[in-house]
Amino acid sequence: MPNIRLTIAYDGTRYGGWQIQKNTRTIQGEIEEVLGGLFKERIRLIAASRTDAGVHARMQVANFIIKRTIEPKKIKAALNTNLPKDICIIDSKKVNYNFHSRYHAKSKVYKYTVYINQNDDPFRRNYYYRVPYALNMAGMKKAANAFLGKHDFKSFQAKSAHSKIKDTTRTIKRVTIKKEGLFIGIEIEANGFLYNMVRNIVGTLIEVGRGRLPKDSMKRIIDLRDRREAGPTAPAKGLTLFKVKY
Amino acid sequence: MPNIRLTIAYDGTRYGGWQIQKNTRTIQGEIEEVLGGLFKERIRLIAASRTDAGVHARMQVANFIIKRTIEPKKIKAALNTNLPKDICIIDSKKVNYNFHSRYHAKSKVYKYTVYINQNDDPFRRNYYYRVPYALNMAGMKKAANAFLGKHDFKSFQAKSAHSKIKDTTRTIKRVTIKKEGLFIGIEIEANGFLYNMVRNIVGTLIEVGRGRLPKDSMKRIIDLRDRREAGPTAPAKGLTLFKVKY
Repeated sequence: MPNIRLTIAYDGTRYGGWQIQKNTRTIQGEIEEVLGGLFKERIRLIAASRTDAGVHARMQVANFIIKRTIEPKKIKAALNTNLPKDICIIDSKKVNYNFHSRYHAKSKVYKYTVYINQNDDPFRRNYYYRVPYALNMAGMKKAANAFLGKHDFKSFQAKSAHSKIKDTTRTIKRVTIKKEGLFIGIEIEANGFLYNMVRNIVGTLIEVGRGRLPKDSMKRIIDLRDRREAGPTAPAKGLTLFKVKY
Repeated sequence: MPNIRLTIAYDGTRYGGWQIQKNTRTIQGEIEEVLGGLFKERIRLIAASRTDAGVHARMQVANFIIKRTIEPKKIKAALNTNLPKDICIIDSKKVNYNFHSRYHAKSKVYKYTVYINQNDDPFRRNYYYRVPYALNMAGMKKAANAFLGKHDFKSFQAKSAHSKIKDTTRTIKRVTIKKEGLFIGIEIEANGFLYNMVRNIVGTLIEVGRGRLPKDSMKRIIDLRDRREAGPTAPAKGLTLFKVKY
C-alpha cells in the first residue's frame, strides 16, 4: 500500500489550526476532505506539527497510506485544484511505507515575525505581531543564547490540557534573530517543542527587548520551571512553521 | 479651512477599487465614512490615482478640506482605529490650501508583480499574477526600452468609457524589471497613465518574455495606435500603486 508524503504551505488565518475538529475549518480537515473525494475512501493524514489556530506554515509535512496506486503528481494537481487558495501543496511523492511525518522528523524550524511600527502593513498584517516600541536587538540576541542546548523548558510550556506531558526537556539547536527593515525574524530550531513553547520564548524575548526583563535573566527563568516566571505568549499570527528536517 | 493630506496603503483584494460607488465597498467609501463620523460633515476625498478593483497601494495620496481645525495626527489615529485592517493610514498632515493630490502629482510609480511557479504562494497569493512558464528576462528588458519617453500610448489604453480621452500621449520616465527569486517586479514611472495602461504594457511584456512577440516589436505596436496589436491585460491583483511624487 503506497505511503504518500505531502509538503504543504498555508496561511492559517482562517483556520482553527491543523488538527481536525468539529464545527471549525482546519487545514487537516480541508485536505482530508479533498483526498476522500479523490480516493473514495477515508484518508487520515499524519503531520509533522499540529499547528495552532492562526499559525502558518511554509513547509508542513504530512503523509498518508492509500490502498490503490496513483501517480503522486496527480495527487498534488488534484489537491491544488480543489483546495482553498490559502492552502497549497508544494510537493507530493511516494515514500517508504515506514515513513512517519512526526516520529521521523529530526528537527523543526519555526519563524516568528515581529513588526516594529506605529501602523500596520496591510499586505502582511496576518503574518506578524506588531509592537509600537523599539526593541533592543543586542539584548535579545544575548538573552536568546541561554536557550541553546538541552534544557527543561517547563517555564515555557502553556498551562493547558497538553501539560500532562511528563518530559519537558527539549534541545534547541539554533536561535537566530535578524532585523530586516522594520521586521524582526526570530528563528528557532529544536528537536521538538512543548505546547506554545515558541510563542512563550518569543514573548519573553520581547520583554527583554523592551527592557522589562534583564538580558541575563533567562537562565534563572528556565531553572525555576514555572510558567509564571516567563513572559507572555506572543500572538499566533506571527508564527510560521518554517521547515521540517528529516 | 484646513487642507489635510493623507498617505494611504491598502490591500485592494476585497474592494471595488478606490472610487466610491453604490453597492460595492470601495477604499474611498470606507475612509469617507469614518471621516464623516469624525467631523460630523460630509467629506470628499481627492486621490492621486483612482485604482481599479483588486489593485493595491503602498502609497496612495488623498486630500480633503475640512471646516474646523483638528490635530492632523489625531485624524490618522482615529482612521486607523476605525478602518478595516486592510486599509492603513501611514501619515496625515496639514498642507497648503491649494494642494491637490491629483493635479499636483509630478509622477506616479506602479509596480507589477509576476510569480513564476507551478504552485501558488499562499502568503502572497493576492499580490501577484502567477505564470507557470519561464520568462526571458533579457528580452523583456530590451522590449521595455521602447516605452521610455514621450509616446502616444493609445495601443495600451483599455477600450472603455474612459477612452473618450483625446490626448493619449504620456511620458514614461522609467521601466525597471527585476527578478527576486521566483518573483519578477516591473516598475513603471510616468507623468500619467491611461486606463489600464500599466496592465496592458505588462501583459504585452509577458508575451515577449514567453516568446510570443518579438522583443523588437514594441515600437511598431506603439506606432499602430491600436489596442488589438498589444498583448492582453494582466490581472489587477498583481498591480500596486507604489509611489506618488510631487
